[in-house]
Amino acid sequence: MTAGKVITCRAAIAWEAQKPLSIEEVQVQPPKKGEVRIKVNATGVCHTDAYTLSGQDSEGIFPSILGHEGGGIVESVGEGVTSVQPGDHVIPLYIPECRECKFCKSGKTNLCSVVRTTQGAGVMPDGTSRFSCKGKTIYHYMGTSTFSEYTVVLEISIAKVNPKAPLDRVCLLGCGITTGYGAAIKTAKVEEGSNVAVFGLGGVGISVIQGARKNKAGRIIGIDTNPGKFELARKMGATECLNPKDYDKPIQQVIAELTDGGVDYSFECIGNVNVMRSALECCHKGWGQSIIIGVAGAGQEIATRPFQLVTGRVWKGSAFGGVKGRTELPELVNDYLEGHLDIDSYVTHTMPLDKINEAFDLMHEGKSIRSVILY
Amino acid sequence: MTAGKVITCRAAIAWEAQKPLSIEEVQVQPPKKGEVRIKVNATGVCHTDAYTLSGQDSEGIFPSILGHEGGGIVESVGEGVTSVQPGDHVIPLYIPECRECKFCKSGKTNLCSVVRTTQGAGVMPDGTSRFSCKGKTIYHYMGTSTFSEYTVVLEISIAKVNPKAPLDRVCLLGCGITTGYGAAIKTAKVEEGSNVAVFGLGGVGISVIQGARKNKAGRIIGIDTNPGKFELARKMGATECLNPKDYDKPIQQVIAELTDGGVDYSFECIGNVNVMRSALECCHKGWGQSIIIGVAGAGQEIATRPFQLVTGRVWKGSAFGGVKGRTELPELVNDYLEGHLDIDSYVTHTMPLDKINEAFDLMHEGKSIRSVILY
Repeated sequence: MTAGKVITCRAAIAWEAQKPLSIEEVQVQPPKKGEVRIKVNATGVCHTDAYTLSGQDSEGIFPSILGHEGGGIVESVGEGVTSVQPGDHVIPLYIPECRECKFCKSGKTNLCSVVRTTQGAGVMPDGTSRFSCKGKTIYHYMGTSTFSEYTVVLEISIAKVNPKAPLDRVCLLGCGITTGYGAAIKTAKVEEGSNVAVFGLGGVGISVIQGARKNKAGRIIGIDTNPGKFELARKMGATECLNPKDYDKPIQQVIAELTDGGVDYSFECIGNVNVMRSALECCHKGWGQSIIIGVAGAGQEIATRPFQLVTGRVWKGSAFGGVKGRTELPELVNDYLEGHLDIDSYVTHTMPLDKINEAFDLMHEGKSIRSVILY
Repeated sequence: MTAGKVITCRAAIAWEAQKPLSIEEVQVQPPKKGEVRIKVNATGVCHTDAYTLSGQDSEGIFPSILGHEGGGIVESVGEGVTSVQPGDHVIPLYIPECRECKFCKSGKTNLCSVVRTTQGAGVMPDGTSRFSCKGKTIYHYMGTSTFSEYTVVLEISIAKVNPKAPLDRVCLLGCGITTGYGAAIKTAKVEEGSNVAVFGLGGVGISVIQGARKNKAGRIIGIDTNPGKFELARKMGATECLNPKDYDKPIQQVIAELTDGGVDYSFECIGNVNVMRSALECCHKGWGQSIIIGVAGAGQEIATRPFQLVTGRVWKGSAFGGVKGRTELPELVNDYLEGHLDIDSYVTHTMPLDKINEAFDLMHEGKSIRSVILY
């Protein structure tokens, strides 16, 4: 029994920005009140981890344990925890769902903000970390820190999922896939027969395509400047793919001409403010909605003529696909188990923890969709 | 009986931009197929008329008969017209409702576009005008041309209204009041208890306030740099009024602090792209919606950080309050008759047609809310 005791295990530590992760022995404290310690079985490696490691993330804190696409099993629970128990299969959530704050109660958003300050500061709500290494405090990351064999997260930051689901697959629902799939089915609520444009065909973009397909969209147009991504996009449900480099006119005009005035829903999955504008402007007058998913660089701004909105287009955004993690993520796990949601195709590489830097290399080189670390 | 005959009557003609209107005798042809000739009883004078007369409207056509806030009585109908008959009380619509096009059938927008090209060109769908003066063709304006004792409009551009309603009041539903009131009750669908911010307290802004009040909003915050407008705004339902000049910090920050994070709905009723940004950014994270109503200058752009949208704010717009004229404008007339919608307070001046240039002067000097021309 490890409950109540400090666990020493391996983790990949980001000692500082722009340096490779370092595999170290870390001490993981037992969970305090409202907290849960999880044995992590698998974790994806996501662009957001790389963004923070690059030092560009102004909120990045070091030394820390990155990772936010994990799947694991509850090892022990702290005082007062009732919604999960040891043995439960879980996915840690970087957006919690406390069910008590103004946001959770609104029924209009998944952006529970109850622990935003401490989570952003890399600590638990009591202001301290549960990780240490060689006597030094190691900070949490996004409230999840899944690049460790054991991690401590809040009870409100845990989705309990169907134990039949393989954790080395559904771990990817912890971020990218849910972000895209949810944006289509929760944020946009794509309707049967509607036309959809998806800008950027990485992991998030193809997840949007899957969500559009699940909701029986009509045309699903994938757009990317790298035609190497078209094959998988088509496999996931894109009915056609466009490379903006093949056209002399703005891609929004090409799409509007293809679709008798524009699409019903568009999604920006890159983080490029110019593409965000194209995505808005390729929407149909009167009702087209554009959903921004990508994260733009610090200080960058989007722009358009207000006429685009006055004539009925809607500009909105989506974080974590609008999915309320504890309540709705289990549905997505079931979508996977029932065959509506392909996760397997994303996993182009698997590797043990000590090869995690290779996962970053593969991502930077564009060779992987997702690498999954198997503990 | 005048049916089938040319009618000679008085009208205010805009011979060219930047010149006063000229009261002339005009010839008004009988209505052709699908058209209706209306005896205009009253018309408001709106900023949009002044905008076109100023020459800034790149789509302005001269010589023409301006005016788009009219109320009148059907004089005669052309071939095939079935939905109105002589004697009906009507309000001409600058956005038609054909009930057959993609837009009308979508159920998502009021922007019927079936005659956009000819209406924009100042002619009826057969490519000709029904107005002439001294042998010269005089063009239509916005499909309404209510600055004439008689005008010809399309059947699809007519709202038949309750004959108990005074035409010299409900004529104002032809534009500004509907634009604001509809933006609150149709586009935003303001909910009971929700907090609302209204930027710009002219005729449109106070109409938004009335719509918010009808829908039982909680706080209704009016914002204007002219505190002279606060009294009427409060009378119409504003719970408080702010002058941005009274604060050292951005008004969006002031509003967010006043409202525990921001308002649920904001409305821009000026046409200033910087104010449009403030209006978006004063919205509450997670669900706040900002509706652009004002018309910005040619080529001007709105901008914000995409983070504003990714964290749940929604940016949209509204034209003619999202109201489908033939179907929904009669409801607004009834709202007036039942006392839910104050129109009387807008009418600060009335005058005969030959004083119409004074109405423009009063508007430019900020001395009127609305002048109504009584024929």
